[in-house]
Amino acid sequence: MISKVRAAMTGLVGSKSTKQSIKPDVCQQDKEPPKTEIPSPRVPCRPGFLSLTPEELQASEDHTSRIILSPKNPGELHWGTGYAEVVNAGKSLHNEDQACCEYITVEMRDGKSNDCLKEFPESGQSIIQKQESLDQVDDEIGFSYWGLFDGHAGCGCAMFAAKLLHFHICDQLRDLVSILRQSVATPAPLCLVHDTTENAAGTPKEKKTQPPLDTELRFHLEKQVFPESLVIGALENAFREMDKQIETERTTHKIDGGCCALVAVHLMGKIYVANAGDSRAIIIRQGKPIPMSQEFTPETERQRVQFLGFLKPELLGNEFTCLEFPRRIQQKELKKRMLYRDHTMTGWAYKTIVEDDMKFPLIYGEGKKARVMATIGVTRGLGDHDLKVYNSNIYIKPFLSCAPGVRVYDLSEYDHDANDVMVMGTDGLWDVIKDEEVADIVQRVFASHDNDDQSNRYSLVAKELVLRTRGVLKENSWRLASGSQASVDDISVFVIPLAEGHRSL
Amino acid sequence: MISKVRAAMTGLVGSKSTKQSIKPDVCQQDKEPPKTEIPSPRVPCRPGFLSLTPEELQASEDHTSRIILSPKNPGELHWGTGYAEVVNAGKSLHNEDQACCEYITVEMRDGKSNDCLKEFPESGQSIIQKQESLDQVDDEIGFSYWGLFDGHAGCGCAMFAAKLLHFHICDQLRDLVSILRQSVATPAPLCLVHDTTENAAGTPKEKKTQPPLDTELRFHLEKQVFPESLVIGALENAFREMDKQIETERTTHKIDGGCCALVAVHLMGKIYVANAGDSRAIIIRQGKPIPMSQEFTPETERQRVQFLGFLKPELLGNEFTCLEFPRRIQQKELKKRMLYRDHTMTGWAYKTIVEDDMKFPLIYGEGKKARVMATIGVTRGLGDHDLKVYNSNIYIKPFLSCAPGVRVYDLSEYDHDANDVMVMGTDGLWDVIKDEEVADIVQRVFASHDNDDQSNRYSLVAKELVLRTRGVLKENSWRLASGSQASVDDISVFVIPLAEGHRSL
Repeated sequence: MISKVRAAMTGLVGSKSTKQSIKPDVCQQDKEPPKTEIPSPRVPCRPGFLSLTPEELQASEDHTSRIILSPKNPGELHWGTGYAEVVNAGKSLHNEDQACCEYITVEMRDGKSNDCLKEFPESGQSIIQKQESLDQVDDEIGFSYWGLFDGHAGCGCAMFAAKLLHFHICDQLRDLVSILRQSVATPAPLCLVHDTTENAAGTPKEKKTQPPLDTELRFHLEKQVFPESLVIGALENAFREMDKQIETERTTHKIDGGCCALVAVHLMGKIYVANAGDSRAIIIRQGKPIPMSQEFTPETERQRVQFLGFLKPELLGNEFTCLEFPRRIQQKELKKRMLYRDHTMTGWAYKTIVEDDMKFPLIYGEGKKARVMATIGVTRGLGDHDLKVYNSNIYIKPFLSCAPGVRVYDLSEYDHDANDVMVMGTDGLWDVIKDEEVADIVQRVFASHDNDDQSNRYSLVAKELVLRTRGVLKENSWRLASGSQASVDDISVFVIPLAEGHRSL
Repeated sequence: MISKVRAAMTGLVGSKSTKQSIKPDVCQQDKEPPKTEIPSPRVPCRPGFLSLTPEELQASEDHTSRIILSPKNPGELHWGTGYAEVVNAGKSLHNEDQACCEYITVEMRDGKSNDCLKEFPESGQSIIQKQESLDQVDDEIGFSYWGLFDGHAGCGCAMFAAKLLHFHICDQLRDLVSILRQSVATPAPLCLVHDTTENAAGTPKEKKTQPPLDTELRFHLEKQVFPESLVIGALENAFREMDKQIETERTTHKIDGGCCALVAVHLMGKIYVANAGDSRAIIIRQGKPIPMSQEFTPETERQRVQFLGFLKPELLGNEFTCLEFPRRIQQKELKKRMLYRDHTMTGWAYKTIVEDDMKFPLIYGEGKKARVMATIGVTRGLGDHDLKVYNSNIYIKPFLSCAPGVRVYDLSEYDHDANDVMVMGTDGLWDVIKDEEVADIVQRVFASHDNDDQSNRYSLVAKELVLRTRGVLKENSWRLASGSQASVDDISVFVIPLAEGHRSL
């Protein structure tokens, strides 16, 4: 089926943090990804909300000074979110991290028109007015959105995803507006009874997509599905659609590389954190860290990746073995007994080495050095459709997943004060700092600025976190205050005040 | 490679709880499973340690009286373990649960002889003496063992596994004796440097299997593997070997059905709980329950099972869809939009129903009613090699896994008193009782028998747990004290005193 979606996203590239509404019309089930114009990936680009001048942009890419950047007007980001970033120490030419912070209004899909351009908010329309009148508008909901995208093997994919993933989320939510506006305790209708008519091609054309109450007979074995699960499903499908769009448009737009994606969505009183890769989010409540994401790496996903290699050995290209060994095997060790583990095992056992075991292990290495097919250190993310094992025709993409893990935090279950925050960071942050240390720094920054202007308190925390993990340059080496190796990777951090979530409920 | 293992297990069938040592010799890498004589599965059989007379055995199978059985001499089981069981309320002709409690001595495999019959302990040998002299014997270690096997579709598989799984564990551990006797903090050698010679067939014949210190060059990327991981690997491989043996010998021995297997091994101060299926173990320490196993059911393993169906659609026989729907779809719902989730999703989303979605879902139902291919309610276990979807040629075994989940509890990390126990139970217990209620019953039984003979205190707890979950027969229905439905399934329970673990360290 060919869809007729034409999402009018042109012109949103590099936008500042704004409150936006999109309404791409979908008249058929299988949606074509929204289209947009993106800058050439060869042009370095930083988040629009930093409002960098060309000179500042150039200075931001200096791998020796590693200037820490944050928005010029503290508090300008949605919820007064703090943000800071720094470029790597020379690992790649550009900063491959990207970020996005938006408020999005989701309008119910009603199918009245196929021409979404007409319905797209004209420039100059008061979006804030839209948000304020939200409670009076039955056919829309809004969500706050923060996204971090840690690119690899190029900037293109992270830039593309930073520009578009929230629109995919919006698009997925458009069918759910009326369901989500019900009580969270009301089960979702299992089947939507549409008024459908056949179009010329014989495929159904949906005229009325607003779900009525579920009037179907209740069956013996029937699951109840609550709105929260639909939002999780919407996030999962948005990641999938985003990845499909990258695949489809990667040649046209020269989208190079891939990226980890970590996004937070605040919707109807809950924060949904969706993560694909090794970025991380933690909530700090009353000074205590609460993990809000899981990492997807060759170590944490070894069994899934090995299982696929076991079931589809043709994907290994006769170069790799899906068994794991604790180190490379030497030719002289053939017929000796060595530790191994397969996709069914968490422990280790000895096996006699045979010729087939001499192939390179599909998963190899430990910690930050663990790799899939000796190439990539994360197992989930967006893009990487062209990624191959060096000097071979073996594609790595089948082993990577674009499905995020999603965790939900119900803001209404707790009281939050101004010191309770969610910290989102790319791996550049977490590589050199523990959750407890982050919680400690956050508390100390707040304590030392209690009497200052409060508009920039979250920005100060973000900058301090980047400063502490970037460290200082001593004798050509970036060092933490403790003297140990600081982060030489790109670092990007959001610090989100949770108390704001109560105000916007 | 053809192995020459001939394990001398004849005569062990229905043995009482004893301390045993086996030494099947393996001269080659790929081991043939140990062989034994098992009773015909058509003859009902209860654990040997119950020492039932034929009349008692018959009475034990009365589905109306549902007599609770436990060992005649309280305290006769290893560690003074308590045990109790009861037959189902008519669900199957026989009690399909089986149990085993043993102390096993593992002798180092030394390859001195291929004739293990010579080395097998003669009847009458003092096994207790063997255990007592353990510390003086460098080439052996001992482990305590408890196993529960919950059969389905026949008694054969559970009986076979109850008789043999501990021998497979012993066999896996035989190569590890010297490594396990080292400090737990000493990494295991990654490669065993054997003195091997080629035999006539050109395959290596191991003369010396005792691992020397790892003298290999340390590589840049090298993992350290500690003894605990080797025990986990040994348990995982023992389950696999047991399953292979059931497959190989199922025709000869008429091994019908399959079984869940939950085993606990106490070795060198740690308890390893290996579980494949929906039996469960919890530790109750200072009155608080600590889960010691995870359950493997169509609900907990939905994504793994769907992933396999997605990758190997030929296994679905054109009868099943690997998508999940919250209920059966009706023909009239074709082209309507219904909730679904696939192997990548934890949330739900709507999709337009197409003809292919009308197939029966690979995973269907909720809670205890969830099934793989409308047939089986567990996703891991032993056996089931012949299990097919009713009235079809579709095998279910590929979707089942014999790999256990293994959890480790280090006894030395805590002080345990006489009220700290591990409770192992088949699903007949857990279906009608929560962890906290079990902890509560355990504490109350201990409190009310503080001044009594202490030899049967764990037996009293086991009997009370079975009594409380079996309930009483009221108007043809088994009822809990609360009035709600009691367990109509077979129930088997071990209550293991943890303080004993310190004594046997």
